[in-house]
Amino acid sequence: MYIPTLADMTAADERIRPYIHRTPVLTSSFINSLAGAELFFKCENFQKAGAFKARGASNAVFGLSDEQAARGVATHSSGNHGTCLSYAAGRRGIPCTVVMPRTAPQAKKDAVRGYGGKVVECEPSTSSREAVFAEVVAETGAEFVHPYNDPRVIAGQATCSKELIEQVDGLDVVIAPIGGGGMVSGTCLTLSNLAPRIKIYAAEPEQADDAYRSFKAGHIIADDAPNTVADGLKVPLKELTWHFVRNHVTDILTASEEDIVDAMKLIWKRMKIVMEPSSAVPLATILKNTHVFAGKRVGIIITGGNVDLDKLPWQ
Amino acid sequence: MYIPTLADMTAADERIRPYIHRTPVLTSSFINSLAGAELFFKCENFQKAGAFKARGASNAVFGLSDEQAARGVATHSSGNHGTCLSYAAGRRGIPCTVVMPRTAPQAKKDAVRGYGGKVVECEPSTSSREAVFAEVVAETGAEFVHPYNDPRVIAGQATCSKELIEQVDGLDVVIAPIGGGGMVSGTCLTLSNLAPRIKIYAAEPEQADDAYRSFKAGHIIADDAPNTVADGLKVPLKELTWHFVRNHVTDILTASEEDIVDAMKLIWKRMKIVMEPSSAVPLATILKNTHVFAGKRVGIIITGGNVDLDKLPWQ
Repeated sequence: MYIPTLADMTAADERIRPYIHRTPVLTSSFINSLAGAELFFKCENFQKAGAFKARGASNAVFGLSDEQAARGVATHSSGNHGTCLSYAAGRRGIPCTVVMPRTAPQAKKDAVRGYGGKVVECEPSTSSREAVFAEVVAETGAEFVHPYNDPRVIAGQATCSKELIEQVDGLDVVIAPIGGGGMVSGTCLTLSNLAPRIKIYAAEPEQADDAYRSFKAGHIIADDAPNTVADGLKVPLKELTWHFVRNHVTDILTASEEDIVDAMKLIWKRMKIVMEPSSAVPLATILKNTHVFAGKRVGIIITGGNVDLDKLPWQ
Repeated sequence: MYIPTLADMTAADERIRPYIHRTPVLTSSFINSLAGAELFFKCENFQKAGAFKARGASNAVFGLSDEQAARGVATHSSGNHGTCLSYAAGRRGIPCTVVMPRTAPQAKKDAVRGYGGKVVECEPSTSSREAVFAEVVAETGAEFVHPYNDPRVIAGQATCSKELIEQVDGLDVVIAPIGGGGMVSGTCLTLSNLAPRIKIYAAEPEQADDAYRSFKAGHIIADDAPNTVADGLKVPLKELTWHFVRNHVTDILTASEEDIVDAMKLIWKRMKIVMEPSSAVPLATILKNTHVFAGKRVGIIITGGNVDLDKLPWQ
């Protein structure tokens, strides 16, 4: 297992610069007053393809040799990683195949295709997904880019915190949602090297709290059929992300479904930004644990903005 | 009738600086490709109190003598002006009374109160509103700040275009929604003086097209019970705003209800920002009149973000 280093993050930062946005940091005096802390929202919902995953995907795609690149890239994902990999491949002009359950939302399939990627459908089971994916790779020779358990992807996500500490001085804490742990691992990679004073928290839905339970137990525990409105956070930790979480995260906090939806609506209403339920989990945990963050300067990663506007969770 | 001048805008710009945001300008390569033009969205939905009207209201409030200010300010508005006047009065620490029909949405009343203003209810008729408002002024001696037909308010709104031309070079066109005409008048005031090369367009709902019809007829025509999803744009032009529209606007374009809602959803989906139906009218007209804007650099004023998240117009 290769653990990505600060040099990998720095190389990623240069490599992906032409293909990603340096996203803005927004604040809300109203939400600060509720939290009793100074909150700085790093808005990856404004990122290319609508999610931070454009960073890791671009790093993987643009790090390929020409020979590898010609055979394209492939992944399995019904979420932002598939869309972002398709985006990055489109920018390089190489093929991209995303294996997705046939039951995945039409909007997700359309998003992959909108950037030029190919969707290959499987049955909604792990065995079907693995079989179909193996077939795709055998046929095309495409490079597999895992959504998070991949050093290239983590090094890419790590560029987000580098920007954040350049944009905001004197942060005490950075908090990000945790699913598979790609963003949290990238955050750990950058901050443990460049700003070890900053504490790193992860935020997770109570109803998909495998990272929380893994953290408390000291070994990876996977959820049994997690069900949460924060659908980007259902996937489990893997070895590489577990390495970063175990070594660098101060604590993992959890939030109920109701608190996540309330925090999401609060951000939409007061900050006028469209973001995903997953991105609301950090604020939900902050508002329930104000004693942890009182008086602190807190960076919050708003991970993405790809939400179905016809099915908002408060309706 | 006093016509505000460039000097009034410059004074406003200095006066209100501590109380308003210099809002960002956002772009979307996807929407540019649809429009065949380069669009620059000036995001007043991120403005204090959620709308550009914080500019005019702050200019009126902070321009008062201490003696006037002690008696407070008053207006009639069931929209953003009431909220923004309450915001500005709150910042100065003076009383603010907003007369509103008792049938106005609870959220609008709460917004005024949230900034410390007082809501006085009237019946939903012009005669009741005028009677109740006269009573309020007689009792308090408050200064009336009209939502748009007021030189202080127009000079305040005019600061928005000043920022926009500082933020974006070489604009060919600026387009803003038109209701009473406060934002359009401010835009005319600034651009006719500082950047006369830039053409000014106004955008209006077909179902509240009094400004369009006035512009074509050469005199003010009021609508008879306009009904549009863009509820900030139902009010008619008045003498002062008509002066600017008549003298400086190149054309007024209109959009159907369906096109407005489609444009609104497109902006939410691709740009990840929350904005009002009124703010979508310019893009709706651009996408229907691409020949007018083809290849041009177009500034678009996103006027506000105060929308009822429980009642989105596409649902």
